[in-house]
Amino acid sequence: MSLIVQKYGGTSVGSVERINAVAERVKTWRDLGDQVVVVVSAMSGETDRLIALARKIQERPNPREMDVLVSTGEQVTIALLSMALENLGCPAKSYTGGQVHIRTDSAHCKARIRDIDGVRVKADLDAGRVVVVAGFQGVDDGGNITTLGRGGSDTSAVAMAAALNADECQIYTDVDGVYTTDPRIEPRARKLDRITFEEMLEMASLGSKVLQIRAVEFAGKYRVPLRVLSSFEAGEGTLISLEEETVEDAVISGIAFNRDEAKLTILGVPDQPGVAHKILGPISDANIEVDMIIQNIAADEATTDFTFTVHRNDYERAREILGSAARILAAREVLGDDEIVKISLVGVGMRSHAGIASRMFAALAKEGINIRMISTSEIKISVVVDEKYLELGVRALHDAFDLHLADSAATGSNSASN
Amino acid sequence: MSLIVQKYGGTSVGSVERINAVAERVKTWRDLGDQVVVVVSAMSGETDRLIALARKIQERPNPREMDVLVSTGEQVTIALLSMALENLGCPAKSYTGGQVHIRTDSAHCKARIRDIDGVRVKADLDAGRVVVVAGFQGVDDGGNITTLGRGGSDTSAVAMAAALNADECQIYTDVDGVYTTDPRIEPRARKLDRITFEEMLEMASLGSKVLQIRAVEFAGKYRVPLRVLSSFEAGEGTLISLEEETVEDAVISGIAFNRDEAKLTILGVPDQPGVAHKILGPISDANIEVDMIIQNIAADEATTDFTFTVHRNDYERAREILGSAARILAAREVLGDDEIVKISLVGVGMRSHAGIASRMFAALAKEGINIRMISTSEIKISVVVDEKYLELGVRALHDAFDLHLADSAATGSNSASN
Repeated sequence: MSLIVQKYGGTSVGSVERINAVAERVKTWRDLGDQVVVVVSAMSGETDRLIALARKIQERPNPREMDVLVSTGEQVTIALLSMALENLGCPAKSYTGGQVHIRTDSAHCKARIRDIDGVRVKADLDAGRVVVVAGFQGVDDGGNITTLGRGGSDTSAVAMAAALNADECQIYTDVDGVYTTDPRIEPRARKLDRITFEEMLEMASLGSKVLQIRAVEFAGKYRVPLRVLSSFEAGEGTLISLEEETVEDAVISGIAFNRDEAKLTILGVPDQPGVAHKILGPISDANIEVDMIIQNIAADEATTDFTFTVHRNDYERAREILGSAARILAAREVLGDDEIVKISLVGVGMRSHAGIASRMFAALAKEGINIRMISTSEIKISVVVDEKYLELGVRALHDAFDLHLADSAATGSNSASN
Repeated sequence: MSLIVQKYGGTSVGSVERINAVAERVKTWRDLGDQVVVVVSAMSGETDRLIALARKIQERPNPREMDVLVSTGEQVTIALLSMALENLGCPAKSYTGGQVHIRTDSAHCKARIRDIDGVRVKADLDAGRVVVVAGFQGVDDGGNITTLGRGGSDTSAVAMAAALNADECQIYTDVDGVYTTDPRIEPRARKLDRITFEEMLEMASLGSKVLQIRAVEFAGKYRVPLRVLSSFEAGEGTLISLEEETVEDAVISGIAFNRDEAKLTILGVPDQPGVAHKILGPISDANIEVDMIIQNIAADEATTDFTFTVHRNDYERAREILGSAARILAAREVLGDDEIVKISLVGVGMRSHAGIASRMFAALAKEGINIRMISTSEIKISVVVDEKYLELGVRALHDAFDLHLADSAATGSNSASN
């Protein structure tokens, strides 16, 4: 007998019919002898409806009251799913975040989970019930309702799995797993059977929006095996687990990309301590998030060039701020480009394998794709290229590393020579 | 400085615009220096929407989960109203039934309030906040969400007023007070400035659906002055209070009526102990509520006739059951009529005044209205007449007791001679 935590998102519970389908699926697991805890989101569209109501009343709604408001979305779902389960003859009991003691800090609308008291849930499971828990919400020490911010239901599920020491946390979504890259861009993209937490973090933060980043971090920290599956099709999905458990010896797991980037360069700034702070300080003060930061060695004796990327929505504002900084620093020029994209190779295997970068650059060069920026980390190599090359670049790399093959050239044995 | 509890029903908070209007009104009271607690219902239509969702999933929805579901309706309103108040610069804080410790028994969907812990609310009021509380809901000893049954928000408000020892509990609704009778039937019906709890109970149970009966009982028990006012118009409304505080010396306060009655008679049953039980036992077992019960003295030595009224929806079923009972009791015949109505004179003053009944019967006789049944209590006289006479009867009585006049013939001085 296993203890499984399953999480169903808004699309999976978006109608009475879909809630009934989820109940059927949950019952199947329980009939196999497993204990099942189900964490659910609000029915799709409901959270947006509530937020729109609030905005009609208050331009910037009070965060505490916002949490009281939107937390009703999940509360509706837990009640309906429990009814659907009972209707199938499967005993079930619902809990709000407060009732099951998902204790968080008091940062309304973006609270973080501190701990969960699993005693009550365990008792219900032992009594043969399926436990249905409202995701995305908790309660602070003062008894106030909190929410974890959008997408937080994944984190609720992982935290619940950690608290209950569950055998697996299953995230049901509208895709059937994690792919080597976006199948809409590379039709030969292959579903991965396994991926490590670290790789998943890089893939998620780079735009493969399958899982919430914090949920993956949480799962990694508490060593909760995490599985992404489809709500609508049968299948094993993708298991996200610790590195030592990974059987595949792949160097590259996948190719992530981000379309929403823009880059800014300030040319000819004095090459002296404190300059980077003087450039990025005002950007940060304006609440603009910076992604890649590159500073090469000084081009001449006295000055250097400094480049960074921001979200495309922040481009104009960042450029303005940078203009002021340039005047103060007596920099030569400010350049910018908001028609760029970032493409990244991700894989824990690359740590121990030389030649991945050069093989990547060669593949891009072969297609005549000029690389604008390069940045690397332990398990990732990112390049910035002109937006028009996104699809071509992703396909070229997917091909170069044979990612469409399960036992591919991307494994250590074949790639070492590059 | 007074402490006022205000309750706004579903229609009063039925849209963003109306919620803003309620906020304006609450702020007006607070600006006058009063401490205000606001109890609200779900936005009109919302509870029905949620119940319909549940019924699509489970024919007879699980009561515990039903409470989890429908309690979200009020939770949405408290958040939105608190935002609207903050938007007007009026500090506010919302509480669900559970958060403010409205403790009830565990009878889901029809729970009864046991006690309320007013400490948290008092602290907020003393800090200058308006406190917004979800009506209709509470929490049982196990931490389960409960609801009081439809209309229970009135009871929540009265219970809150009792717990806080409030100076007044104001029920805002879509009528501007309690009338001598339904103005749609008698255009000269007059709004009462005051009425006693007992009179209000008789008026409410007889079909003047201004206030929930339990709320009036509660207010009477805990001596909470209760006021019914309009959400949409200015005015003093009607104050419901203890008899000794009533300044008007009225004999008759109003005329209530009930259209939904049907009567059943079993003729020629043996006049012996236990017969009434044998007749009504099976009716009660079928969960049919009986209103009036009349048994006259035996018509001959051995048999008597027994008559009672039920809700018109239960007429056919009651008649069937009575048929079986009649065979067992060897009764002569079963008669029934579902085209009857009940009209009642209500007034605490009638206790001490003779002649009210005969004056009533005379007024009806003058219009040629035949009385089918008569039943009396301390502060009420009810008659059953043919349905077609409802409007005529109500108007005749309203006129006979001069109820359209504030200083009317219904007062003791004028009516004593009848």
